[in-house]
Amino acid sequence: MKIAFIGLGNMGAHMARNLVQAKQDVSVWNRTASKAEPLRAHNAHVSASVPEAVRDAEVVITMLADDSAVSSLVLEPDGVLPHLKAGAIHISMSTISVALSQQLAVEHHKNGQHLVSAPVFGRPEAASAGKLFVVAAGDAAILDRCAPIFAAIGQRTFLVGHKPEMANVVKLAGNFLISVVIESLGESIALTRKYGIAPQEFVEFLTSTLFAAPVYKTYGGLIAEQRYQPAGFAMRLGLKDVRLVAAAADSAGVPMPLLSVVHDNAVSALGRGMHELDWSSLARLAAENAGLK
Amino acid sequence: MKIAFIGLGNMGAHMARNLVQAKQDVSVWNRTASKAEPLRAHNAHVSASVPEAVRDAEVVITMLADDSAVSSLVLEPDGVLPHLKAGAIHISMSTISVALSQQLAVEHHKNGQHLVSAPVFGRPEAASAGKLFVVAAGDAAILDRCAPIFAAIGQRTFLVGHKPEMANVVKLAGNFLISVVIESLGESIALTRKYGIAPQEFVEFLTSTLFAAPVYKTYGGLIAEQRYQPAGFAMRLGLKDVRLVAAAADSAGVPMPLLSVVHDNAVSALGRGMHELDWSSLARLAAENAGLK
Amino acid sequence: MKIAFIGLGNMGAHMARNLVQAKQDVSVWNRTASKAEPLRAHNAHVSASVPEAVRDAEVVITMLADDSAVSSLVLEPDGVLPHLKAGAIHISMSTISVALSQQLAVEHHKNGQHLVSAPVFGRPEAASAGKLFVVAAGDAAILDRCAPIFAAIGQRTFLVGHKPEMANVVKLAGNFLISVVIESLGESIALTRKYGIAPQEFVEFLTSTLFAAPVYKTYGGLIAEQRYQPAGFAMRLGLKDVRLVAAAADSAGVPMPLLSVVHDNAVSALGRGMHELDWSSLARLAAENAGLK
Amino acid sequence: MKIAFIGLGNMGAHMARNLVQAKQDVSVWNRTASKAEPLRAHNAHVSASVPEAVRDAEVVITMLADDSAVSSLVLEPDGVLPHLKAGAIHISMSTISVALSQQLAVEHHKNGQHLVSAPVFGRPEAASAGKLFVVAAGDAAILDRCAPIFAAIGQRTFLVGHKPEMANVVKLAGNFLISVVIESLGESIALTRKYGIAPQEFVEFLTSTLFAAPVYKTYGGLIAEQRYQPAGFAMRLGLKDVRLVAAAADSAGVPMPLLSVVHDNAVSALGRGMHELDWSSLARLAAENAGLK
Repeated sequence: MKIAFIGLGNMGAHMARNLVQAKQDVSVWNRTASKAEPLRAHNAHVSASVPEAVRDAEVVITMLADDSAVSSLVLEPDGVLPHLKAGAIHISMSTISVALSQQLAVEHHKNGQHLVSAPVFGRPEAASAGKLFVVAAGDAAILDRCAPIFAAIGQRTFLVGHKPEMANVVKLAGNFLISVVIESLGESIALTRKYGIAPQEFVEFLTSTLFAAPVYKTYGGLIAEQRYQPAGFAMRLGLKDVRLVAAAADSAGVPMPLLSVVHDNAVSALGRGMHELDWSSLARLAAENAGLK
Repeated sequence: MKIAFIGLGNMGAHMARNLVQAKQDVSVWNRTASKAEPLRAHNAHVSASVPEAVRDAEVVITMLADDSAVSSLVLEPDGVLPHLKAGAIHISMSTISVALSQQLAVEHHKNGQHLVSAPVFGRPEAASAGKLFVVAAGDAAILDRCAPIFAAIGQRTFLVGHKPEMANVVKLAGNFLISVVIESLGESIALTRKYGIAPQEFVEFLTSTLFAAPVYKTYGGLIAEQRYQPAGFAMRLGLKDVRLVAAAADSAGVPMPLLSVVHDNAVSALGRGMHELDWSSLARLAAENAGLK
Repeated sequence: MKIAFIGLGNMGAHMARNLVQAKQDVSVWNRTASKAEPLRAHNAHVSASVPEAVRDAEVVITMLADDSAVSSLVLEPDGVLPHLKAGAIHISMSTISVALSQQLAVEHHKNGQHLVSAPVFGRPEAASAGKLFVVAAGDAAILDRCAPIFAAIGQRTFLVGHKPEMANVVKLAGNFLISVVIESLGESIALTRKYGIAPQEFVEFLTSTLFAAPVYKTYGGLIAEQRYQPAGFAMRLGLKDVRLVAAAADSAGVPMPLLSVVHDNAVSALGRGMHELDWSSLARLAAENAGLK
Repeated sequence: MKIAFIGLGNMGAHMARNLVQAKQDVSVWNRTASKAEPLRAHNAHVSASVPEAVRDAEVVITMLADDSAVSSLVLEPDGVLPHLKAGAIHISMSTISVALSQQLAVEHHKNGQHLVSAPVFGRPEAASAGKLFVVAAGDAAILDRCAPIFAAIGQRTFLVGHKPEMANVVKLAGNFLISVVIESLGESIALTRKYGIAPQEFVEFLTSTLFAAPVYKTYGGLIAEQRYQPAGFAMRLGLKDVRLVAAAADSAGVPMPLLSVVHDNAVSALGRGMHELDWSSLARLAAENAGLK
């Protein structure tokens, strides 16, 4: 399949490489061109512009930082939309707002193109190993055609609906749940520390029993060790995602009081200078509010 | 070992039976005497009173409903404390307040007796199978002597500190985390339902990926099916536990805003008539607040 | 002064009439033209279009429902901006977002025009009596020129800063405080009712003592009487304002947990069918959550 | 009337003096005896013990710090209850829990004595000037007999019900409303400061318009000036009252999410070292969480 891959950040570079290694015909483009060079060594075509990358593509994949990046690289005159063939597929894998996803669906439809939303769960190591989880939504026949792509980058694909935005909602709901896990670990570790219990032992207990899940292991470990730097995912990015959840909830009329707590605490964390710490440092705020350290 | 077992409810009856089957010499007592009869068939001694049950015991185990039951059956004149031998051990396995645990420690110490707190995690099926998780705290040498007991009723024991109350804190912190999982599933399922995503599929996704833990499977399943009756653990009991966490947090000066949300919603759920539903029906409140159903 | 007045709703019609009666030379325009007719009887010029109304104006006043109305009637080709003379003043009195206020300031500046923000506090009766409170911000010399206008419609003007957006922030902060008064009355009246205290007596006590302010009298009365219809200010409009506050707070990095509570409860109130009730029915939600009625 | 007055703190000393000056026959007692001396100069009898003070009294008034003080000085063998005549009245004016008020009612009834609850609103200056607001509840005929006492210490009395606890609930509900005013001022002043608006001007605007009430003036002034020391009412006392409200709400099944916010923030404030600041320093926490100062 002829694939264009736009966005070679921490995640995208690994995903593009896995596609090349799965024998797909891949053209890549990245705003900072130097990041594309390692892909050239893996036999990807390195394109000089978005239009060049997407012109002959059957599928274009975007993996970008936020709404603003997706909006400008897809919708503007020198972006994906005006240069993609009719009948081609855009797989949007970025974490974006439901509203933008809805807008992309409308615009691609007008151009005779197809939109699939397929955000992923997993950190860069999982991306490198092709072990991401892919959450995809869109027209069933189109999703079928994307299956080999999802197989190349992930360990499992979850099809969650026929409208692309549904995958974005699931991604946002998942990020909400992660943020709540962090905050709840922060509060409970503050509580148990106050009674003299070592965080490592508390986390070991949790993750050996009812909470034996990757998310508790990953964040429980970071919090127990107070290892908030370097940030795997910075607080300001976490807050950005919390806001996307809030926007989706607001549009749909869903009150989410736990989200409000996480939101307010993330804003406080930034107000207290934690911009560049990992978002698991919500737990540091909880500790400080309990008078610890 | 000569063991007295006080409290043969949904959990205690199974635990006592497992002790008998582990060849321990067990006397049992229960307020409603008929519940002791099945244990007689398993070769437990059935005592007519608490003093009779504990008089010769090396270890007395209490597994009771709440602070009030523990307080009256342990501290009153015809309770455990005045009739237990010096040097004997009281293993308190009930979910009680940190304050009562502290008081028990003081009173037993005055009488030359030992207190160990060892609350358990797991539902009745796990109790029946001897697969509970035991969280124990107290003097290290005393905990050592209790090891065979813990082995008989649980699959693993976590020693979390030298003061009995520390085990109670861990139990309460664990229940807090469970309550937050329920509430967060309720909110996220309300959100995803609004966008047309089937709860079963959303839960399947979660529990196959980052949230592959027993607590998400158990409660995710109940919520997706809206199976709130019969209650495995009724809302009013859930609220009782939330209040114990709040009391422990307040004494220690730990703000827990997620707990506040769960507390306020549990009170609202009762106000809206959900007394006898399972506490996972916090998710039903979330759905109703989102205008669903 | 030659004044154009755009927007003759519940508030604007009274304000425009007061300007005419203060001997100002007023042209009015309203989307639904029939609403302009009563002003004609008061000797206002009734314009057929926005461009006609504003063409010769020294000052144009907009008093519209929301961002979307202001945006289209000011910024679009047949709106205020392209047809207003250089040197003229736009007094924006609507409750709009801080972001839109900032954008208007930029656009007017480009056109050599001046923007003043001057939202008002008060209900229609106050507007009719010329007893509004005006909160104004903008360039000091320009504010000076607006003084007679403010005097005609209000009982007092508060100058809160040199940037127009500052008046919008004060308006939003004031609405936030009102929403909190409503919610806090709702919660405290639910509490006192549960103990048998009549709401009327509780409100009488409050408003005769520490809380002797108009906002407690107005809303305390509505809540004590459960008089939620007809809506003076509908719940969905209240929620709209809450969102404007939240957006302003988010841009500035200010956590507002009380606002989060009001927001989540307003969304729940809508989810429970209170769209067209007065926003004081937040108190009804509080009562229902306490199991009352 | 023969009156015993127990508790001569910041408030009680003024109240007792006003009773003497109203020609009542007053015996006073205070744990720290030296505080009674100034009353002697005003012609009060200074008693050496509680039993001596109350033995001949028709009315005994208690004005003490908290539940624990009231409980020990009223219920213990050398306290009020065992030494008060049958038919006499106990006017409990302290801010205490609803539960203790209920217990006092039962115990006095057993002894053929009468309980009236009559907590007051106002700061020490108001107590000195006899300008307190008295909120009283109890048997109507008994309240009648207390009228001259209330008249001597307050500017107005509000009768709120026939059960003494009802006055305690109103007192707690009032304190809740005050705490919310503080927190809401804190959040809104943080917001407006971020946009460059001077707190003094914002407070001036509020208290000249919709929020022209004593509570906004008092606390708005303290917060605008950041005058948190010396504490008129220390944060830890504020938190104590918040907990009394929470207990009353919990017993009655009333969710109070605004109270939860205030509670969690007050605990955080203490965790961050604000024990001895005035409870209006909730606003300082709000400012710090917004990154101010």
